Amino acid sequence: MRAEIVAVGTELLLGQIANENARWMSERLAEIGVDVLHHRVVGDNVERIVDALADASERSDAVLVTGGLGPTQDDVTRDALAAFLDVPMVHRPEIEGLLRAKFAGAGWPMSSNNLRQAEVPQGCRYITPVRGTAPGLIAELPDGTRIYAMPGVPLEMMEMMEGTVLPELSSLSGKAAIVSRTIRCTGIGESRVAELLDDLFRSLTNPTVAYLASSGEAKVRLTAKAASLEEAAGIVEPVANEVAERLGDAVFSTTGESLEEVVIRLLRERRLRLACAESLTGGGVGERLTIPAGASGVFVGSAVVYTPEAKSRVLGVSSATLEGPGPVSEACAREMAEGARRLYASDVALSLTGAAGPEAHGGAPPGTVWLGLDAEDRQHARGFVSPGERDQVRRWAEQAGLDLVRRYLEGRHLPASDPLL
Amino acid sequence: MRAEIVAVGTELLLGQIANENARWMSERLAEIGVDVLHHRVVGDNVERIVDALADASERSDAVLVTGGLGPTQDDVTRDALAAFLDVPMVHRPEIEGLLRAKFAGAGWPMSSNNLRQAEVPQGCRYITPVRGTAPGLIAELPDGTRIYAMPGVPLEMMEMMEGTVLPELSSLSGKAAIVSRTIRCTGIGESRVAELLDDLFRSLTNPTVAYLASSGEAKVRLTAKAASLEEAAGIVEPVANEVAERLGDAVFSTTGESLEEVVIRLLRERRLRLACAESLTGGGVGERLTIPAGASGVFVGSAVVYTPEAKSRVLGVSSATLEGPGPVSEACAREMAEGARRLYASDVALSLTGAAGPEAHGGAPPGTVWLGLDAEDRQHARGFVSPGERDQVRRWAEQAGLDLVRRYLEGRHLPASDPLL
Repeated sequence: MRAEIVAVGTELLLGQIANENARWMSERLAEIGVDVLHHRVVGDNVERIVDALADASERSDAVLVTGGLGPTQDDVTRDALAAFLDVPMVHRPEIEGLLRAKFAGAGWPMSSNNLRQAEVPQGCRYITPVRGTAPGLIAELPDGTRIYAMPGVPLEMMEMMEGTVLPELSSLSGKAAIVSRTIRCTGIGESRVAELLDDLFRSLTNPTVAYLASSGEAKVRLTAKAASLEEAAGIVEPVANEVAERLGDAVFSTTGESLEEVVIRLLRERRLRLACAESLTGGGVGERLTIPAGASGVFVGSAVVYTPEAKSRVLGVSSATLEGPGPVSEACAREMAEGARRLYASDVALSLTGAAGPEAHGGAPPGTVWLGLDAEDRQHARGFVSPGERDQVRRWAEQAGLDLVRRYLEGRHLPASDPLL
Repeated sequence: MRAEIVAVGTELLLGQIANENARWMSERLAEIGVDVLHHRVVGDNVERIVDALADASERSDAVLVTGGLGPTQDDVTRDALAAFLDVPMVHRPEIEGLLRAKFAGAGWPMSSNNLRQAEVPQGCRYITPVRGTAPGLIAELPDGTRIYAMPGVPLEMMEMMEGTVLPELSSLSGKAAIVSRTIRCTGIGESRVAELLDDLFRSLTNPTVAYLASSGEAKVRLTAKAASLEEAAGIVEPVANEVAERLGDAVFSTTGESLEEVVIRLLRERRLRLACAESLTGGGVGERLTIPAGASGVFVGSAVVYTPEAKSRVLGVSSATLEGPGPVSEACAREMAEGARRLYASDVALSLTGAAGPEAHGGAPPGTVWLGLDAEDRQHARGFVSPGERDQVRRWAEQAGLDLVRRYLEGRHLPASDPLL
């Protein structure tokens, strides 16, 4: 089954937002084995939407449209769909009733514009909205091609994708069941990952493999197809295990967890409490550890110390260290970690200091990063030089810092410093 | 002048990344007055790229292609462009020389694949890469339509857009000069902004106005066209001033600066040093204040205190407060700010505490946020209830916190608490 995504919205063409809806939808469609061959973005313009529907429905079995279903005069996807199908618009009193109940319940005034959302092109089915007020629309063409029009508001689109579109496409495709597994690693380059797995995938076609690198992380995504979910899982499982074994210590998750989620889970399992001391990351490690709710049982806090005075005053870094090797040094990283463990009375502490750039800092060239780990049974420091510019250096430092804690908690080898430092 | 953006990359169709390149390019093109009418994404497939080039060049005066110019066999944009133009590929020895020098300089081994990047479809011009190794390609069709192919790596694309593509299109369009101004505000809803400006834009067509809301921020973008830059600036300036005056205290920037950049600049101008105390934001405020380089002169640090014990131990929040009104309260916010100012010996301190959700925290329902500000001449606290889910509550708290500091530094009115709290 082939699909195409058509996004309607002038705000996309003006560059005000990126087409994150298409990304999310494509990822979900790939998971159920639907091939997405095109994305397209057009403005809020009937003629161009009709053109896009015509092109897309000729090439694809399913056309997924987002946006333009709101109540204002700018929202013309409904009209474009009716024009493309060459059918009149029909007022659906049960949708009007639903809208009136929603508005009354929320205490909002309802304008006559809102009644446009009760119109459905003749012969189309509709999807009842739960969160929003815009119904989705479903058209079936004589050749079996389906057009699904959904709101552009991400949560409203996701609700309709998960509740209606994905289940329909999955059952329509009559396709084999699909199971995907993602092996996530850090501290290893994408090309090295591909090299280590090359022979494994040179001949294999099921599961398929995809490599993806983002700053400081490499992912291997395996996707197996079979007659049943059990069978697909049985195909993907041994390969995922082989991949994880080959990549060894670099693997932090085989279940999709983020690095911060892994660290929080390990701390919880080991009943240990973590504190951080952050310089170049400015609070980014603490921010990431608190993205998931409920970290407060194991993450106690982070002392962001952005100046030498703060390092000394808040964490007790010695003036000998600050004036000798300086704020970007092994000694400073070690003292920052010790200081954070003492200040927060935590079991483990991680420190991060470095020169994010673009200028050198404390005598260290841009890209230099020093990490410290302090626990009752282990002290460690690691220095490395990150590639990239300021943002990337900060991101790599976060990744390497969280990974150092992950390795410590898993009882793994802790990486040494770059020999060049 | 009409333009279309064609992105080549299977990773986009698989949903591994969003088309952020198209967003950035569209924004830049809008600034020089080029209308972007379509975005399209196709996979790394010669036939489909050729189709996209044919459609796009029929509709548009400029076709901007990203991706598929790398050295591997997957990278087929060069071949597709040659196929579309129906010309052979020509080896350019001067590009080979450049590539050899780049590889030798970086100490990388050079494979025969890399030599593919020295091939150019006959009759095309090329853009010499500075950062990367992939030259850009420029084709001119007999009807004057131009095709620009650029690498998909964002920094490499941006380099070619800014160095070559935008200047060429700007001079080609022979269009009136364009000047844009963005008025950014926070603490005010997009609909309220539009209401306050409604009469102003009901009749005006030059400058045009666009409203954009993102979490905790509303932007008003004004774009004027005229015969010269001076004339366009003369048109936009009085309207921008009128808009800024109507929106009043809510405006934090009329020059495009981010809220964190404004805070850092104001601290520098007033020679004051800021410290933070963060609970629900986990370090996000410190992280944002340190995105621009050079904050260390005025931002000293942030004490992330994610547990009641840390609030007491690190910042001296009293047990009477923690056991009475609790960690999400006016009293706690005030004591956190006092504690941070003392701990870091700063001139000003900002504190943020709250219940980000999804659960209540310290007796406060999800969405409750308390901010504290402590300076020698002023103490203030403000409570409010943020809409949205966990991520949005954290983001709104950051915005409101930074904005409280901005208002204090500008000597403006400091907002009071929601009457409901």
